[in-house]
Amino acid sequence: MKFLTDYMTFHTKKRREFINITRDVIRVLEKSGIREGMVLVSAMHITSGVFINDAEPGLHRDIEEWLLKLIPEGHDYYHHRTGEVNGDAHLRNLLIGHQVIVPVTDEKLDLGPWQQVFYAEFDGQRSKKLIIKAMGE
Amino acid sequence: MKFLTDYMTFHTKKRREFINITRDVIRVLEKSGIREGMVLVSAMHITSGVFINDAEPGLHRDIEEWLLKLIPEGHDYYHHRTGEVNGDAHLRNLLIGHQVIVPVTDEKLDLGPWQQVFYAEFDGQRSKKLIIKAMGE
Amino acid sequence: MKFLTDYMTFHTKKRREFINITRDVIRVLEKSGIREGMVLVSAMHITSGVFINDAEPGLHRDIEEWLLKLIPEGHDYYHHRTGEVNGDAHLRNLLIGHQVIVPVTDEKLDLGPWQQVFYAEFDGQRSKKLIIKAMGE
Repeated sequence: MKFLTDYMTFHTKKRREFINITRDVIRVLEKSGIREGMVLVSAMHITSGVFINDAEPGLHRDIEEWLLKLIPEGHDYYHHRTGEVNGDAHLRNLLIGHQVIVPVTDEKLDLGPWQQVFYAEFDGQRSKKLIIKAMGE
Repeated sequence: MKFLTDYMTFHTKKRREFINITRDVIRVLEKSGIREGMVLVSAMHITSGVFINDAEPGLHRDIEEWLLKLIPEGHDYYHHRTGEVNGDAHLRNLLIGHQVIVPVTDEKLDLGPWQQVFYAEFDGQRSKKLIIKAMGE
Repeated sequence: MKFLTDYMTFHTKKRREFINITRDVIRVLEKSGIREGMVLVSAMHITSGVFINDAEPGLHRDIEEWLLKLIPEGHDYYHHRTGEVNGDAHLRNLLIGHQVIVPVTDEKLDLGPWQQVFYAEFDGQRSKKLIIKAMGE
């Protein structure tokens, strides 16, 4: 069995950003030499997410507005009594999820034609880490 | 290590449907000869979902009503400026998730007694694809 | 390839509880002898969840209030026509998700510093089961 573990670090300019990391996942897969298996892509923070969807800017605005509606930004979260101000980012992490598994078949990511992998920063402007782990044969 | 990759294609009559695919997942597992490992079940579209829950029609109506409440159907999504009309289906994909991992122990899906695997079509009436990938030994 | 499958049973005093199971996941990993791979942590019920987030009690209250807002507890769910009274717990399972994959690198769970694994009971006061399955080499 082969394994390749790689890490990415993000330091976004804005508090919230969606970053297309599909090419990075492909790069790790190619370096691994794996023909069959999977790649786990997983945020190492509790205020970030990982999702697969379309690389369409309008849709990304829709996702942002929808998250703002379901998870109010200025709410007086209990979590803020610790001094933190990112309660909303924790809830976004739970709603969007922090990881995806990409299947690998015949040396390629076995994704549909519109599926792209995104890192979702919900509380950036500081260093955040992601793991990409390829596993298979 | 053994791998077996299979694909299913759905072409639903209605725009939205939940389809029980548990038997299909079992069929792929049995064909693979895997005794220990997992089966990844993952939609290859960004307007479909995969979830595990109960095969109870009333519950499925509850899920549908709940999704309609959290994700308005007739909303003027930015995504629609591209000519698309399925912004709601993209958000449903993010809320429900597009994949599950089913553990395999002693040649069987290691699920609880009420856990069934469903393909969730959110924008059907056209051809949609799903991957079922068994991995293990 | 090595596999170790373990099960945990919960019988919570309250209907809803979040239980930190990070040490249990570590225990299974150590027992497995796996150096590289992953641990699948998956609820075997359709009214429970598994998530990774912060072990901060204020945040857990925020999650509880947020779930109550998005998923009304006293609603007249169609599912209740079967005699059940736990429609809300099924929807919570779908929102939070029922499983996570924890990557394993150099014999350790490869988590970020604040990432803790939680079992989320949404309909307890009865026996509920969880699978922890370590897979790798």
